[in-house]
This record gives sequence, C-alpha cells and structure tokens, in this order.
Amino acid sequence: MIHILAAVSPEATIGKNVSIGPFTIVHANVVIGDNTKIDSHCEIGYPSALADGLPLVIGANSLIRSHSILYEGSTFGERLTTGHRVTIREKTVVGINFQVGTLGDIQGSCTIGDYVRFHSNVHIGQKSTVGNYVWIFPYVVLTNDPHPPSDISIGATVEDFAAVATMSVVLPGVTIGKGALVAAHSSVARDVAPDTVVGGTPAKYLCDTSKIKLKNDPDTSAYPWRKHFHRGYPESVVAEWLKEFS
Amino acid sequence: MIHILAAVSPEATIGKNVSIGPFTIVHANVVIGDNTKIDSHCEIGYPSALADGLPLVIGANSLIRSHSILYEGSTFGERLTTGHRVTIREKTVVGINFQVGTLGDIQGSCTIGDYVRFHSNVHIGQKSTVGNYVWIFPYVVLTNDPHPPSDISIGATVEDFAAVATMSVVLPGVTIGKGALVAAHSSVARDVAPDTVVGGTPAKYLCDTSKIKLKNDPDTSAYPWRKHFHRGYPESVVAEWLKEFS
Amino acid sequence: MIHILAAVSPEATIGKNVSIGPFTIVHANVVIGDNTKIDSHCEIGYPSALADGLPLVIGANSLIRSHSILYEGSTFGERLTTGHRVTIREKTVVGINFQVGTLGDIQGSCTIGDYVRFHSNVHIGQKSTVGNYVWIFPYVVLTNDPHPPSDISIGATVEDFAAVATMSVVLPGVTIGKGALVAAHSSVARDVAPDTVVGGTPAKYLCDTSKIKLKNDPDTSAYPWRKHFHRGYPESVVAEWLKEFS
Repeated sequence: MIHILAAVSPEATIGKNVSIGPFTIVHANVVIGDNTKIDSHCEIGYPSALADGLPLVIGANSLIRSHSILYEGSTFGERLTTGHRVTIREKTVVGINFQVGTLGDIQGSCTIGDYVRFHSNVHIGQKSTVGNYVWIFPYVVLTNDPHPPSDISIGATVEDFAAVATMSVVLPGVTIGKGALVAAHSSVARDVAPDTVVGGTPAKYLCDTSKIKLKNDPDTSAYPWRKHFHRGYPESVVAEWLKEFS
Repeated sequence: MIHILAAVSPEATIGKNVSIGPFTIVHANVVIGDNTKIDSHCEIGYPSALADGLPLVIGANSLIRSHSILYEGSTFGERLTTGHRVTIREKTVVGINFQVGTLGDIQGSCTIGDYVRFHSNVHIGQKSTVGNYVWIFPYVVLTNDPHPPSDISIGATVEDFAAVATMSVVLPGVTIGKGALVAAHSSVARDVAPDTVVGGTPAKYLCDTSKIKLKNDPDTSAYPWRKHFHRGYPESVVAEWLKEFS
Repeated sequence: MIHILAAVSPEATIGKNVSIGPFTIVHANVVIGDNTKIDSHCEIGYPSALADGLPLVIGANSLIRSHSILYEGSTFGERLTTGHRVTIREKTVVGINFQVGTLGDIQGSCTIGDYVRFHSNVHIGQKSTVGNYVWIFPYVVLTNDPHPPSDISIGATVEDFAAVATMSVVLPGVTIGKGALVAAHSSVARDVAPDTVVGGTPAKYLCDTSKIKLKNDPDTSAYPWRKHFHRGYPESVVAEWLKEFS
C-alpha cells in the first residue's frame, strides 16, 4: 500500500491498511491511524522548530488529497478529509470529521472542533478558535494582528454552527456567535450575536437568521441550517440536532 | 516523450507527440489529444465517483503547467492552456482555447465556452455557466448556494465578452450580461444588464461600458474590448468580431 | 545534499553546501547561491520565452519551501525565504531578505526592495514596484490593467514601510506612500499619502497612522511600526531605524 515512489521515513508510525501515494514524503515524527489514505505529492510531518518536537497525529479513516502539506506538531481526530494543496502548520488541534477544501491554509496554533467544514481557499490565522459544526466558505480570512505588523496576536473565534460566507474577513479578537451568519464580502470588526446575520464593511446587523427563508420553500427558515441540511453528517449527529427542535 | 519518473497508466489513451513530465501521474480513464504537453508534478484523471465513469478528455495542442490536477469526467476542447496548480473537478465541459491561470479552482459540473480566459486564483462554483470570450480576474468567486450551507445549488451565469474584475463575488443565480463589466471588489447580487458597468457591495449600476475611455486615447471607448484588444486570439476570431463594428 | 529523486540539470550552477529535496526539478538556466536549501516538489528555473534567456539567480543562504515554482529570468538577493507553493514568474528583481508566504503569486517584471515581507496568498501583478521593508498581507492583489482586458499595463507602487492589510486591492498606477496603512478589505483607487490610513471601497483617508494606538499600550502609537516591531530583522537594520526617532 506504500507506493514504490513514496519516500517514507522508517521512523514514522503507520497504522494498518494505510495507503501512501507516489511522490509523497512522510517524515519521521508522524503517527498515521489505520485505514488512512494519503494521495500523491504530499508532504506529511514537515519538520518545524515551532512544533517543539510534538508529532503530527492523523486519526484513523482519514483521506489526505494530493499535494497537501501537514506540519509536525498538529493533531487531527478520526476521519479527517482534505482537498488538494492544503497546508496546515504546527500545533493546531482538530476534532473528528474535519473537512478542509482545496488550497486551505491553516497557519498553526489553532483549535478546531468536531464536524467542521472549510470550503476551498480559506486562510485561518494563528490562534483562531473554531467550534463544532462550523462552516467557512472560500476566500475567508481569519486575522489576528490588530495593527499589522506587530507582536500582538489575538485570534478570532467562530462558535458552533456559525457560517462565514465567501470573501469575508474576521478581524482580530472578534467572536462570531453560535449559529450566526456572516454575509459574503463582509469585514467583521465587532462581535456577532448568536443567530443573527451581519454584512458589509464594516459588518452591521442585518436581521435574525430566522428571517431568511429557503429559496425552494418560502415558509421555512433556512436557519438554523441544521434543521434541514444533513448531507454527510452521521445519523447520530443529526438525531441529536433534531431533538432540540422536536 | 514520457519522462522516466512519470507514472502513466497503460490504460490511458495518449495521442501522438505527447510530452509528460517527471513526477506526473496519468490515471487510466484519460484521453489526451495529440501534441499536448503536460508538465511535472501533475495529476491527470484524478479518480472520482462523481465522474460516473466518464473519462477526462484533453483536446489536442494543450499545455498543462506543473502541479495541476484534472479530474476524471471533464472534457476540454483543443488548445487548453493552464497555469500552475490548477484544479478542475469532474463533469465540467469546456470549449476550445480555454486559458486558466495559476491556482484556478473549478469545482465541477460547470459549462465554459470558447476562448475563455481566467486569470490567477479564480474560484468557480459548481454549476456555473460561462459563455464565450469571457474574462475573469484574480480572486473572483462564482457562488451557488443562496443560504449556505444548504442542498440548493444555483450556478451563476457570465455571458459572452463579459469581464469580472478582481476580488468580486457573483452570488447564486445571477447573470452577468453580454459585454458587461463588474468593477473590482464588488458583490453582484442582481442580474447585470449587457454592456453596463456595476460596482460596490451590493453592486449597483455605475454607467454604460461605452463611457469608459482608454487611458492612452481618451477619445476611444475601452469597451467593447474586442474592438481594440486582440492579443492571443486567432485572426479569424478577430475578423469576426470586427465585422460587427464595420 | 542532492536527493537521489531530484532531477537536477547538469548545466545548473549550484553553490557550496546546497541542499535539494526529492521530487524537485532544477532546470539548466539557474544559479543557486551557497548554503541554500530547496525543499521537495519544487520547480526551479521554469523555462519561459519571456525570460529572454536570462537565468534564475537565487542568492546565498536562501530557503525555498516545498512545491514552489520559480521561473527563469528573475533574481533574488541573499536570504530569500519562501513559504510553500509560491510561484514567481520571469524578470522580477528582488533585494535581500525577501520573505514570501505560502501560495504567493508574483506575476513577473516586478521590482521588490530589501527586507520585504509578503504574507500568504498575495497576488502581485506585472510591473508592480515595492520598496524596502514593506508588508503585504493575505489575499491582497496589486493590479495593473485600468480597463481589463487591454494592452495597457500600469503597475502599482508600494513605498518603504507601507503595509497593505488583508483582502485589499490596489488599482493600477496607484502609489501607497511611505509608512502608510491600507485597512483590510479596501480598494485603493487613488494615491495614499505617507503615514496615513485609508480604508473602504473606494478607500478614503481615515486618519494619520500615528492616531492608531497599541492594543496593549494605549499611550503608544502602533505606527510607525518600525519603532516597536523588530522580529526577524537584523540588529543593524533596527539600529538604523531607531536612529531616526532618537
């Protein structure tokens, strides 16, 4: 299952039934869980002094798509799924079932919950905190320096079930509340209350999320999205969500 | 012409005079036209269940620059030219002479016409429709979900000769009319009339395109651009364009 | 120091103590300075007719991170440091100690000074001019075509010590003055005076940079940043900066 043109360190800890594609490098300080598939052209466990010797840990049943780079010192729960060309730096701790799309760039020292989904080409600054079931869409940037460049770094926080739409910037230290929605192309400079929609530059309150109706069913609110959108989540998770609304 | 360090499936159909660079993978379900050059570090025909078994077809006389990834199930006319690190997913159908710049990310199930040019780092959401002779500039995003995340996907449409300037977002279901111009850093939430300029967030009508004059010739309109900008188009195409204005 | 799975042209000029990783290509028309480290999966000296036969020159003590692509015809001073997946095209001339982050895309024919730092995922259009000690943050685009597409190309200029914050667009021919700050998510259509802050679309004057105070010390201005931010600069450079304020 390890391709003859892969370069795998004999010191790496590799689980059962792991597949590693051609032209992929696996460095020494790496632990890969069972049944994980790593595509071609990846670099797994990129060495970094900032990792303080911590290993890269990839949970079981993961899929790392081609050309991705994961640094030493980060930890991923089971069923990590990446797109292509993902870069994740050191000391980021991620829960189970994380999906991160093509070109995602996670800068390190971040905390990310369970069942989080990042679409293509997001940039997550150092020290960001992301809850569970969060969605972040393409070209979103989470920043951390209030007056760049400086030595101050204050990560943003995105709480459970929140969604940040495409091309938005979240400024340092801002908290996006539970279930909130940031409209496309916004700059969020202040905290966003739970279950509200904000938009613009700087982002302002637009309405409660419940006011947004489904395009194909104008009598039904599009939010909280967990009432109607279940694609790819396990039944047990969905059952837990629906209990809240029954 | 196939480098000794390329990994090419014996089942792939490869035309005459095809060149394949080192560290490139060509999967089985692939048809490559004559005289095509594929650089190093590419992955051609990335397998996907969503391709429904359809092959990747690359027209003759194409150039795929290094580190690009093309999925099974998409079809490209002759003279495809990519930049580096392009990703194009399954079931996208593209005309002739398509140029897509470095870091372009085309999400699949899109329809793209002839002589289309995408500059670097565009993100084209699933089900987008792009006409002929269209220009899309860096960091433009074509979206498809009106209330993300949801199961509804309504692609945007960009008609012939339209240009979408850098860092703009086109919202789901919007049509950018023939020859229209979207100014940089806009969010387009409503249809744009042909030969008009829109800008801002949300984008509003600014003027007709004919009001914009060439910087180096203030007596001449910069639009329709096909009257004066011909670089890289074949003479026969340009002759057809100019007939309209004679 | 050259990995057995690297493909290095015997015609390349390679200094002493140079390290070249697996799956990296070094083309013929390349000069690499002493003590430089090139990671895996890179393409160094990508051939281009637009380079007019000029070599790629990489100064001594440089670090090129994995998956990066540098074209023929560009020149870099000592201590170049790149992130991953950087693309730099032909005829760009760069001073010493340049740092360019992951996914940076420099389009060629640019001039970049000494000690410049680009964060991740910047797009620098052809003919841009960047001074010394400049900072450019993620998803910033420097454009050059006033009415795209056209044959006119007028690069933007960013003067010494200026900082352009994330997701901003600098329009063609604009000059960002010395020590100025462009706020996040701005479109800069007019010249920016030295030591001022601009923001918005289109960007307007907001205040002088001296009005912005450090988050952790409200009695101290955050700008000029060179008074307090010295991370990674040599002592001799910092001493020179501080002389101005003593």
